[in-house]
Amino acid sequence: MILQEKQQRNWQPILKQFAAVVGKNSVVQRREELLTYECDGLTSYRQRPAAVVLPKTTEQVAEIVKICHQNQIPWVARGAGTGLSGGALPVEDCVLIVTALMKKILSIDLENQRVVVQPGVINNWVTQAVSGAGFYYAPDPSSQIICSIGGNVAENSGGVHCLKYGVTTNHVMGLKLVLPDGSIVDVGGAVQEMPGYDLTGLFVGSEGTLGIATEITLRILKTAESICVLLADFTTIEESGAAVSDIIGSGIIPAGMEIMDNLSINAVEDVVATGCYPRDAGAILLVEIDGLEVEVATNKQRIAEICKKNGARNITTANDPETRLKLWKGRKAAFAAAGHVSPDYYVQDGVIPRTQLSFVLREIEELSKKYGYKIANVFHAGDGNLHPLILYDNSVPGALEKVEELGGDILKLCVQVGGSLSGEHGIGADKRCYMTDMFNGIDLETMQWVREVFNPQGLANPGKIFPTPRTCGEAARAVQSEKKFEQLEVF
Amino acid sequence: MILQEKQQRNWQPILKQFAAVVGKNSVVQRREELLTYECDGLTSYRQRPAAVVLPKTTEQVAEIVKICHQNQIPWVARGAGTGLSGGALPVEDCVLIVTALMKKILSIDLENQRVVVQPGVINNWVTQAVSGAGFYYAPDPSSQIICSIGGNVAENSGGVHCLKYGVTTNHVMGLKLVLPDGSIVDVGGAVQEMPGYDLTGLFVGSEGTLGIATEITLRILKTAESICVLLADFTTIEESGAAVSDIIGSGIIPAGMEIMDNLSINAVEDVVATGCYPRDAGAILLVEIDGLEVEVATNKQRIAEICKKNGARNITTANDPETRLKLWKGRKAAFAAAGHVSPDYYVQDGVIPRTQLSFVLREIEELSKKYGYKIANVFHAGDGNLHPLILYDNSVPGALEKVEELGGDILKLCVQVGGSLSGEHGIGADKRCYMTDMFNGIDLETMQWVREVFNPQGLANPGKIFPTPRTCGEAARAVQSEKKFEQLEVF
Repeated sequence: MILQEKQQRNWQPILKQFAAVVGKNSVVQRREELLTYECDGLTSYRQRPAAVVLPKTTEQVAEIVKICHQNQIPWVARGAGTGLSGGALPVEDCVLIVTALMKKILSIDLENQRVVVQPGVINNWVTQAVSGAGFYYAPDPSSQIICSIGGNVAENSGGVHCLKYGVTTNHVMGLKLVLPDGSIVDVGGAVQEMPGYDLTGLFVGSEGTLGIATEITLRILKTAESICVLLADFTTIEESGAAVSDIIGSGIIPAGMEIMDNLSINAVEDVVATGCYPRDAGAILLVEIDGLEVEVATNKQRIAEICKKNGARNITTANDPETRLKLWKGRKAAFAAAGHVSPDYYVQDGVIPRTQLSFVLREIEELSKKYGYKIANVFHAGDGNLHPLILYDNSVPGALEKVEELGGDILKLCVQVGGSLSGEHGIGADKRCYMTDMFNGIDLETMQWVREVFNPQGLANPGKIFPTPRTCGEAARAVQSEKKFEQLEVF
Repeated sequence: MILQEKQQRNWQPILKQFAAVVGKNSVVQRREELLTYECDGLTSYRQRPAAVVLPKTTEQVAEIVKICHQNQIPWVARGAGTGLSGGALPVEDCVLIVTALMKKILSIDLENQRVVVQPGVINNWVTQAVSGAGFYYAPDPSSQIICSIGGNVAENSGGVHCLKYGVTTNHVMGLKLVLPDGSIVDVGGAVQEMPGYDLTGLFVGSEGTLGIATEITLRILKTAESICVLLADFTTIEESGAAVSDIIGSGIIPAGMEIMDNLSINAVEDVVATGCYPRDAGAILLVEIDGLEVEVATNKQRIAEICKKNGARNITTANDPETRLKLWKGRKAAFAAAGHVSPDYYVQDGVIPRTQLSFVLREIEELSKKYGYKIANVFHAGDGNLHPLILYDNSVPGALEKVEELGGDILKLCVQVGGSLSGEHGIGADKRCYMTDMFNGIDLETMQWVREVFNPQGLANPGKIFPTPRTCGEAARAVQSEKKFEQLEVF
């Protein structure tokens, strides 16, 4: 049997159409320039797109998407490319629609606490634009100085302050969307209560599979009158976990609550030398408390008492911005520090009910021993969002596969105790094979109904979120390997 | 041309199938017993269902829905029937699936702050079940002692405390659903962060058009250490509105902030004689402040100062539960009081940006004069959710139509200033004809895509939310008149 050669697409006329919409300089097609776009923050998978297009307006996005729609070209939207689950990983012969030139803050309404931005606006810019007037934008991923709001919307990003204030979906009021057929739709709006289906909420976290948000209406909050950071160190990580449970149990909801284990502490001290985190501590707990001055003072005292009751050795607090920053510095540098103390690291992102913290940490230690890889634990303790950092050396053959397996076992553990596969990094290409551990067939099918109705041709970010082909052991790799299989068929 | 007579359904075998699932006593079919189910809280429209079925379990609901699916029978889910937009209004020859017997609280997990309930559980019961342990369920519609959680989910109900704590969607973590084909699906879960599409958020507020929730996982909150109610009275309603703006502008988010105008004050004093609301005031402002004792004390003082600065004549505060209840009593009785001072009243529900409050209230006064009906204004001032009560006499021919027109003009006004058609009562049958004032064709069509994918045969709560037939002047009436048209065709 002679296998049919896959028809090669003639890209030239299509690239000309793109150029007619966005201008020649905003279409990237040269092989060496495309290198940058081969992966996002999940660097272990790479796929070169056929072309990159950089639109500036909603209308340009709509035109580009229409051209893709008419020519059956798969496309992937990309913000700043900092995502950690491969949500913006290109697929074979796709067009990457990059929002990097859509960087305008379109309007600021302080009185109604709304800011409208284009998707390429960097997370941190929103706060910078309104902080002078006493406001800020709450969701604060670690990458906030480089990640874009569009990407935050796609992945429903979280951050340190999401314990008290919620994740991205709680701060997005409305969206202008380009759907996969190129039509432009408005969902949600400036006021909180909108009738009809909550398509804004549906779209946030849909990882680019339902369309592209080209205008985003954000809610901004008033900056708290007083902010305090409390650092407590403990002999064991269990003690720090118990303190977290007791703080929440007492009715206090701090702005953020973070735990770092001994391995993370030492990695951070090796690299950024904060001098604040005792190297012999089993764990440190960082708590940010905000509110009225009297409220912060009262809560600070209560939290300190709870920490002491749970075995805290030392407690340091800081109210001034400079010292607060110093206390946070190590936490903010934790991922980077892991990169310094180990040739490579793999960040996992899972959620567990807070009450399972001690059990899960012990199990992770067992897995670490079983697989023979060190695991540093850094996590949003208040909402049970774990970030185990698996340290390994990618130059050792087979290491990545083993580390992925270990990461998968951690995720399965999270699901087993009633938690979730992802707290804030999304499923993307990386975790789709685990979706069946969390959802049964009909649950997943129901989500895919929604995908199909928005994206019937499957052109918008194919191969993400859902475990298709469902039989694959490692679905992420399938995105890459499809090409190989097709090439094999030719001969 | 001889018009084909519409085939009459033979209900007997179907009713037998229902009885086989839920038992004979849980199938209501006698004409006089069906009377109760002809309408929900929107009493101006009535339609008798063909039958009422009262299941007790998810499996029974699924079986009932499957029978409807197989026999192409439209069905409408109904909770306690207190909804104000006709969301549970039957359609012709439909089956009403009533959740009144699904009243179990299935589990309480205080440590993780989750309660799982069946849909027929009354809103207030959730708080009663956990208040002894120091917790409560935040969304508190005025009807909270009689309305059910299932209905709250369908309509995304709000309440006085939703200013600070959000509406129902912010407190529903997960759902077990029966979809219109009878399949059972789980969406969301116990932890906040779930991967994949946010189908929980999509379902909340979908007014029974996507399926029936049979198990609902709710988030409960810790009861605040201290609660205070502040009552301020003003010469004009504009002053009270300005005070609200200044309170929010100062960064304080009270638990609730309510305004009542002179007409409402007098109606309430006529009926329940609180003795707290001065009859000569242009408006009163009720503010509930909660939090730590020190925080409440500080905020109380600040709010009192802001009220005085805006012209408040008297300020009363109450910290003890009994006096707090006394201050709230009139507000809670406002709708009932309107029923006493006027033969009939029509409650409207619209949302405006807070900054438009003064302008919109003046316009409503103009509309009141133009149409010749008194309008009492009672509203959730903090989030701009208006509840104008139009007082009229339904025995006057044509009055209801005029009142509906006036109500429609108020809604259009809300939309014109950047607000919304509904804050917390839903669209139901009552407001669907106004959806085109708020959404353009493609926006509405996108929502309907979602409806069709869940509900392809259109059997789940037909004729709600969406303005079909789109040409009708008053779409709500179309639900009723369809029967007449069909009957006319026979002859």
